[in-house]
Amino acid sequence: AGLLEEVSFLSTARAGHWTALGSPARIGGMELTGKNLIGGRESGVGEATLRGVNPVDGRELQTSFYEASEVEVEEAMTLAAEAAKQMRTYPAEKLAGLCEAIAAKLEEHKVALLDRCGAECAYPEARLNGEFGRTVGQLRQFAAVAREGAWMEAKIDHADPDRQPLPKPDVRSMRRPIGPIVVFGASNFPLALSCAGGDTASALAASCPVVVKGHPSHPGTCEIAGRAIVEAVEECGFPAGTFSLLQGASNDLGKMLVEHEATAAVGFTGSLRGGRALFDLAAARETPIPVYAEMGSFNPQFVFAGKLEAEPEAFAEALFGSMTMGNGQFCTNPGLVFMPQGDGTEKFLAKYRELIEATPGSAMLNAGIQAAFESGVDTVAKLDGVEIVRGEVSGDGCQVGLALVTLSQGTFEANRDAFEEEIFGPSTVVVICPDETGYAMLAEGFPGQLASSIHGTPADFEGAGELMEVLSEYAGRLLVNGFPTGIEICHAMHHGGLYPAATSAQFTSIGLSSIARWGRPVSYQSAPDSLLPDALKEGNPLGIPRLVDGKLS
Amino acid sequence: AGLLEEVSFLSTARAGHWTALGSPARIGGMELTGKNLIGGRESGVGEATLRGVNPVDGRELQTSFYEASEVEVEEAMTLAAEAAKQMRTYPAEKLAGLCEAIAAKLEEHKVALLDRCGAECAYPEARLNGEFGRTVGQLRQFAAVAREGAWMEAKIDHADPDRQPLPKPDVRSMRRPIGPIVVFGASNFPLALSCAGGDTASALAASCPVVVKGHPSHPGTCEIAGRAIVEAVEECGFPAGTFSLLQGASNDLGKMLVEHEATAAVGFTGSLRGGRALFDLAAARETPIPVYAEMGSFNPQFVFAGKLEAEPEAFAEALFGSMTMGNGQFCTNPGLVFMPQGDGTEKFLAKYRELIEATPGSAMLNAGIQAAFESGVDTVAKLDGVEIVRGEVSGDGCQVGLALVTLSQGTFEANRDAFEEEIFGPSTVVVICPDETGYAMLAEGFPGQLASSIHGTPADFEGAGELMEVLSEYAGRLLVNGFPTGIEICHAMHHGGLYPAATSAQFTSIGLSSIARWGRPVSYQSAPDSLLPDALKEGNPLGIPRLVDGKLS
Repeated sequence: AGLLEEVSFLSTARAGHWTALGSPARIGGMELTGKNLIGGRESGVGEATLRGVNPVDGRELQTSFYEASEVEVEEAMTLAAEAAKQMRTYPAEKLAGLCEAIAAKLEEHKVALLDRCGAECAYPEARLNGEFGRTVGQLRQFAAVAREGAWMEAKIDHADPDRQPLPKPDVRSMRRPIGPIVVFGASNFPLALSCAGGDTASALAASCPVVVKGHPSHPGTCEIAGRAIVEAVEECGFPAGTFSLLQGASNDLGKMLVEHEATAAVGFTGSLRGGRALFDLAAARETPIPVYAEMGSFNPQFVFAGKLEAEPEAFAEALFGSMTMGNGQFCTNPGLVFMPQGDGTEKFLAKYRELIEATPGSAMLNAGIQAAFESGVDTVAKLDGVEIVRGEVSGDGCQVGLALVTLSQGTFEANRDAFEEEIFGPSTVVVICPDETGYAMLAEGFPGQLASSIHGTPADFEGAGELMEVLSEYAGRLLVNGFPTGIEICHAMHHGGLYPAATSAQFTSIGLSSIARWGRPVSYQSAPDSLLPDALKEGNPLGIPRLVDGKLS
Repeated sequence: AGLLEEVSFLSTARAGHWTALGSPARIGGMELTGKNLIGGRESGVGEATLRGVNPVDGRELQTSFYEASEVEVEEAMTLAAEAAKQMRTYPAEKLAGLCEAIAAKLEEHKVALLDRCGAECAYPEARLNGEFGRTVGQLRQFAAVAREGAWMEAKIDHADPDRQPLPKPDVRSMRRPIGPIVVFGASNFPLALSCAGGDTASALAASCPVVVKGHPSHPGTCEIAGRAIVEAVEECGFPAGTFSLLQGASNDLGKMLVEHEATAAVGFTGSLRGGRALFDLAAARETPIPVYAEMGSFNPQFVFAGKLEAEPEAFAEALFGSMTMGNGQFCTNPGLVFMPQGDGTEKFLAKYRELIEATPGSAMLNAGIQAAFESGVDTVAKLDGVEIVRGEVSGDGCQVGLALVTLSQGTFEANRDAFEEEIFGPSTVVVICPDETGYAMLAEGFPGQLASSIHGTPADFEGAGELMEVLSEYAGRLLVNGFPTGIEICHAMHHGGLYPAATSAQFTSIGLSSIARWGRPVSYQSAPDSLLPDALKEGNPLGIPRLVDGKLS
């Protein structure tokens, strides 16, 4: 999402380069070895059993990847803990420099990265280019965030020795880095939310070393991005433990990383099942740590009659464009849509059916996601009172047909639990309501959602204040006349929400504010300038924004 | 702590008023019924089995309190969920008005409140007055925080329709209230961290209804404070479910409250065992919720030779004053002190022994805390190489003698685990080191601490930067030439830290920033002014500080 809208969501992946098996393989000047990258060193003490697979044709891709072992976890985390001690004292300029160097290294290796990513994920070139742009863009944005320094929330309350009945002490506080971060990337954003993605960029900008658990659905993409990061780490003179990449497909590897005593926090983007498993492991530790897991949602859309009367077909095209973005594999996919019955809705449905039927489906990211999508569609399709339209499939492999599910408000209310499960993939569930007056009541009690939208004309919205308020009780982001796909990377973006959309409603996993996850406040009381971090020294040598005696300055 | 330093820590509680048993009892114009307060109504469907006990003489105090039942939990939480819907739309002025009205009501009932509190907690009048001042003071400070509005972190990123390759949308965000809060107060701050304490004040200021689980060690104090809140809620026209008080001594009651589906978050101040139990319950819910538990620590103090050479006796008196504050029952008690061997330390120890021996001990808050203190002191006292000096006990009941424990650095290192357990009460453990050069090494790897201090002269501090950095890796607050007892209520105060000091290192449980616990960010994308909360409307009608396009304004 973000700066990437897809020009076309249909394409066959460029798998042509990946015919020969065996390793190492040279790709665009970068040698793939399948080894783990630990503190700048290659390591493969386990077995090389993990293969990338092209989801278009099911063919195994070049290079076998070594499943990281317990000893490699220990090594990566120990190096990360050592690096954390050094990095926490680094000035913002040095941290910003690393983020920018990683962006430059990714650009150097862009051809290799996008070739391999296309083969592993079946994304079209336009999508890959867009996501690549967002990936390097957010690395540079986090460099700017580090330099600007507002994220540290420096606060100064000056002393008042004359206050009665007791003198007031000098108290200052700021966010300090929490330590080594373990990152679990997303299958559906192999660049922007994976090895060199937002979690890694924000953690490094916050002085925290990163250990990435490579996603088994795109291990080669992870290795190329990881090597780019290692090169930048060396060039910028950071300690070796600043970054490690551990590959693997086992649950054990994730468990070892979350349970390691050096791990200070976890970033995760993926399924509810995966995120909850990591959350449970972290909560059960002797010393619990936070898991910032973003786990998707179905993002209810409420459409008003005026909108559908004015532009039923344009609305159908816009919804269709959002639903098919990334082949429906976006956590912000508008999966559940409420509409009032009427001519506009009939016209919308006619157009939507036409689009579904005219558009052959494409490949999902992997066979597991494909199976889960088909199972999710089947579960709702077989309920009484549910109509379903499926599009065609373009070939074998992980291809799926698009789906339109329609039902009445009554059917929805009778089967509410079934429709409150996310169907991850290219489907739209449309609930036809008698009118809009029941929207607020229908919205009551939705489980936590990443986003929710209302669509209408200014006249439609005259009484929509109450509905917006109900939406704000469950969603992290509310949109007016817009779809949640496409996440702007800015200060005010909140991509998160109440459970089960996320494990922590307090923090966003995307956007500039996501850096706050990797710091914790520390207060300094009556400390002389010589013992204060630069951010809190009286003269403000860093020139950062601070809250001084309750006033922003 | 905060605005209260104790003039004298020795006193017998004013238990004289509480001779007659039976209920209801009229105290300073307030009738104690022992009933739960649910949505402004008295309720006692369970059994009245809980008694307040005067810890000085073990005598049961007037009135039996009704243990809250499952049906009462259900009623309180349901009313709170209803109240949450109304309160979330209230303007800051109305929320501030409630906080101020509660402060005024507490002042109206001050005589009754302090009488009963003195009897239940054995605190001297000066301490009670100080803590009362802090309690009403922080209610008024949170009223000011609500009016000022900075805590909502309003952020606005304006649209840019001309941006390439895609237009930039208008995105705004702010913290919205999370819903009903369950508060578990602290035994040792029966006013400032209990029924009408900081958690309740900050939650109400953030538009969140509150259900207090009354502390079984001071149920009468809770009832009087609870009645004051109920009166204010009615006077200010808030919904009945804004506040409820449920009394009880059972773990089941806490479990029911944490597990109730309407509970959005939990505030807790108390023991590690209690806090961890609530944290585990909350994490195991189908929908996990945050538990903000502050669970105490031993707060390491590092003293340099220059300080001890310059003023060994004054330092002994200052440490003794801090250690005996609240009879040692402060989570900020400086329990573990490192000193270099030498004449200064010998003089310090001679003076400290003299103070311990000249000061008869007073009563702990209850028999459980008394027993835990004696057991904690015994555990370290029987280790090889440990010297112990105990003060006298002034009477029966829950009285304990003060304790000074001394040992060498070698003995500390050989028994590190034993000394990393908090001894809650009036004890000081002094570790005599060969010199100060080992301080940073000794400080490595301490478990999470609320606070840690260094004490020295400017010359001592020339090489102390590294030590401060190590301290900042485990502590939430660092002090220079000061003791952690006495917590200033201000913006920059952080009272929290890494586990086991707290369950969330990201948030403070005391101070103005503690209000942030009760909100979660919500983003609004492309919403017209008419559908935005006032805090985010273009014209800034509330006049609050906001981050606009990355700049504070």
